[in-house]
Amino acid sequence: MKKYLYSTLTSLQIDELCRRPAMDFESVFGEVGPIIEDVRLRGDDAVLDLTQRFDGVRPDPLSGPVSNTPEIPVQANVAEAFETAYTNIFRFHKAQYPKDLIVETMAGIVCSRVARPIKRVGLYIPGGTAVLPSSLLMLGVPAKIAGCEEIVVATPPRADGTVAPEIEYVASLIGASCIVKAGGAQAIAALAYGTASIPKVDKILGPGNRYVTAAKMLLQNSDAMISIDMPAGPSEVLVIADRQSDPAFIAADLLSQAEHGPDSQVVLVGIGEMDFEKIEEEISRQNEKLSRSDVTAKALDNSFIVETADARDAMAFANRYAPEHLIINCTGAEHLSTTVKNAGSVFIGPWSAESVGDYASGTNHTLPTYGYARMYSGVSLDSFFKHITMQRLSEEGLKAIAATVTTMAELEALDAHKNAITIRLQ
Amino acid sequence: MKKYLYSTLTSLQIDELCRRPAMDFESVFGEVGPIIEDVRLRGDDAVLDLTQRFDGVRPDPLSGPVSNTPEIPVQANVAEAFETAYTNIFRFHKAQYPKDLIVETMAGIVCSRVARPIKRVGLYIPGGTAVLPSSLLMLGVPAKIAGCEEIVVATPPRADGTVAPEIEYVASLIGASCIVKAGGAQAIAALAYGTASIPKVDKILGPGNRYVTAAKMLLQNSDAMISIDMPAGPSEVLVIADRQSDPAFIAADLLSQAEHGPDSQVVLVGIGEMDFEKIEEEISRQNEKLSRSDVTAKALDNSFIVETADARDAMAFANRYAPEHLIINCTGAEHLSTTVKNAGSVFIGPWSAESVGDYASGTNHTLPTYGYARMYSGVSLDSFFKHITMQRLSEEGLKAIAATVTTMAELEALDAHKNAITIRLQ
Repeated sequence: MKKYLYSTLTSLQIDELCRRPAMDFESVFGEVGPIIEDVRLRGDDAVLDLTQRFDGVRPDPLSGPVSNTPEIPVQANVAEAFETAYTNIFRFHKAQYPKDLIVETMAGIVCSRVARPIKRVGLYIPGGTAVLPSSLLMLGVPAKIAGCEEIVVATPPRADGTVAPEIEYVASLIGASCIVKAGGAQAIAALAYGTASIPKVDKILGPGNRYVTAAKMLLQNSDAMISIDMPAGPSEVLVIADRQSDPAFIAADLLSQAEHGPDSQVVLVGIGEMDFEKIEEEISRQNEKLSRSDVTAKALDNSFIVETADARDAMAFANRYAPEHLIINCTGAEHLSTTVKNAGSVFIGPWSAESVGDYASGTNHTLPTYGYARMYSGVSLDSFFKHITMQRLSEEGLKAIAATVTTMAELEALDAHKNAITIRLQ
Repeated sequence: MKKYLYSTLTSLQIDELCRRPAMDFESVFGEVGPIIEDVRLRGDDAVLDLTQRFDGVRPDPLSGPVSNTPEIPVQANVAEAFETAYTNIFRFHKAQYPKDLIVETMAGIVCSRVARPIKRVGLYIPGGTAVLPSSLLMLGVPAKIAGCEEIVVATPPRADGTVAPEIEYVASLIGASCIVKAGGAQAIAALAYGTASIPKVDKILGPGNRYVTAAKMLLQNSDAMISIDMPAGPSEVLVIADRQSDPAFIAADLLSQAEHGPDSQVVLVGIGEMDFEKIEEEISRQNEKLSRSDVTAKALDNSFIVETADARDAMAFANRYAPEHLIINCTGAEHLSTTVKNAGSVFIGPWSAESVGDYASGTNHTLPTYGYARMYSGVSLDSFFKHITMQRLSEEGLKAIAATVTTMAELEALDAHKNAITIRLQ
């Protein structure tokens, strides 16, 4: 891994290090646009043709209801793991339940703010190399708590046209109404517009490859009228460590993000003089035993080490980088965590492995990558709500505020706005 | 105004009524794309050339700092109105201040969620026919409360290249750092990419015409790395009334939205038999006296009346339409307001004129239009924060969750995720 000395870097060089490997969305938009248009015009037929082309199978039926008793065969230890993960995710997200806000801003003017669930949500679960029920737990549990009326799950079919039992099992746990056996941009387009067999949704959430992300981005700007959770890039982690940190833990945490894909990026920020060679040896040693060692090796090529003089510089770099996952595994980690400004999720201390958050601590693993942690939050219970404000004025309240409103309406040359006040008080 | 009887409408006909006058964003994207590209490549020079072309002036300087004492000359009654509006908006948004959340999901696993301000925000204030300081209050007050470090205001220059004193005054009140004298897509692009004289921001908020909105939409999908508040369409109101409602109030409220622009839409939902003719007479009578009666007349052409049998049907239609502004001015308004599912902001009872919320009740007037209230919230204090989750495990906590995490990592074929746990517990 390349190594940089923080104190010798210019501001421009730091910016350069914080820039992720380029995602060329423009070219992906060019491929995804026609897929969206095809699904918009031909509905199910287009989804089936595209699924045949990309996944090599024509699922029949394309979508189906979810059984509401989880009698789907999954192994006992897996069911138990799901149960624990579900419980922790449920606890942490239930605690986020919004309270109604009521404020009397002036005598006779009562303003309030209430939350209402988004009616129909589409949860996208990638397929590809493995089955990913954890993502369905992360999206489905808050959707269920929020009370979304219709939860539609979309995931690419397996070679035989079916969906893994673990996905069906979790879909049942979270109260999904429907599973769509399609993936890629075609699944996103079908959720956005609706087809004969796939319900149209109001918001689409979930991770995916660049085709899925590009489809979400294009559709949020289209007449399909949907919102999305956030733009998604390759997974990433930044580890802050010092000479007190166990090199084996550091190496394991870096590798656990590197295995997500060859375009993942992992960054080690080391405070003070550390034995970086030992850490790199640990990485090599652990990597040999991994089934995806070719993937991790490629990801490590995108990755680097920054050596800083102190914890303050380390956090300054981390905040500028704005990592999806931030592991603070150094002396004074808890205190340092109070100075985090930009990150998706933070893992504090030696025992907080990042994979705990991926599955079961209770926090959500759908997080902003690519530096988007500067302006986006990860998925939370709030991702499934809209907030609506209300106001109720008494006649006295209106009288008290009338001069303010009419003066400002006059200034903005909005006669009718003024008239709506004066006519009431005549 | 066209009139429909709700009980005779098919579901498809209701969908048709809920569809807004089409916004053809594709063609606007075609015009806006080259403007964005020009600003990205040529920076200030492009912004100045485009401002010359669209606003007929070359402001010098293009941007400047905001004085931090409001010694800008505004009329005393205007300053007083700003003060009242500021205070109410401040109270309502301050009450939204997020509390840190801490949940011990299992013994030894402490999860938390904290809010951090978005560092740099760009607030866009349209110019055009009038000066709109109210929009700057609505965006600037929550930005200030959240603690955004850099608040950049952009607004089109007047014919003489300056900005209205009322905008400068409010910019000072909210602690803005910089005013950019540019508007349109060129201003949005400059905020997104940054130029020599205009700071790059992380999020862009504020209303605007279709060029501004199109620029925000394109840039949220670009390498500029920004987020936006929401897509914006023409302003709209839906009024629920019955025979107890004063026809003059109904007419005034419909007109106050209609005056926003010829593409605004206003809808009256009347419960039971009502004297609709009298309301239309009131509209004509009041409209004659308005300075923008030509605008309102065009907006009324887009507008319609729906007559329903009861309050339940009225709210069913309103929830399906998802209006930006919902006025409930009928018998039992307060109770009916508890059944609102989709709306930007709600005005309850006869004294709650919509223009009160536009200026000074305390709620935000930056709201989802065009049916986007189904999946977007209006601007709130939360629009200026990101939420970051954290977790801290003790060794016991990790032991308790280890089997869950390793089982799920195995199922998802993520060896290194499993290894990050097992290596810690060896």
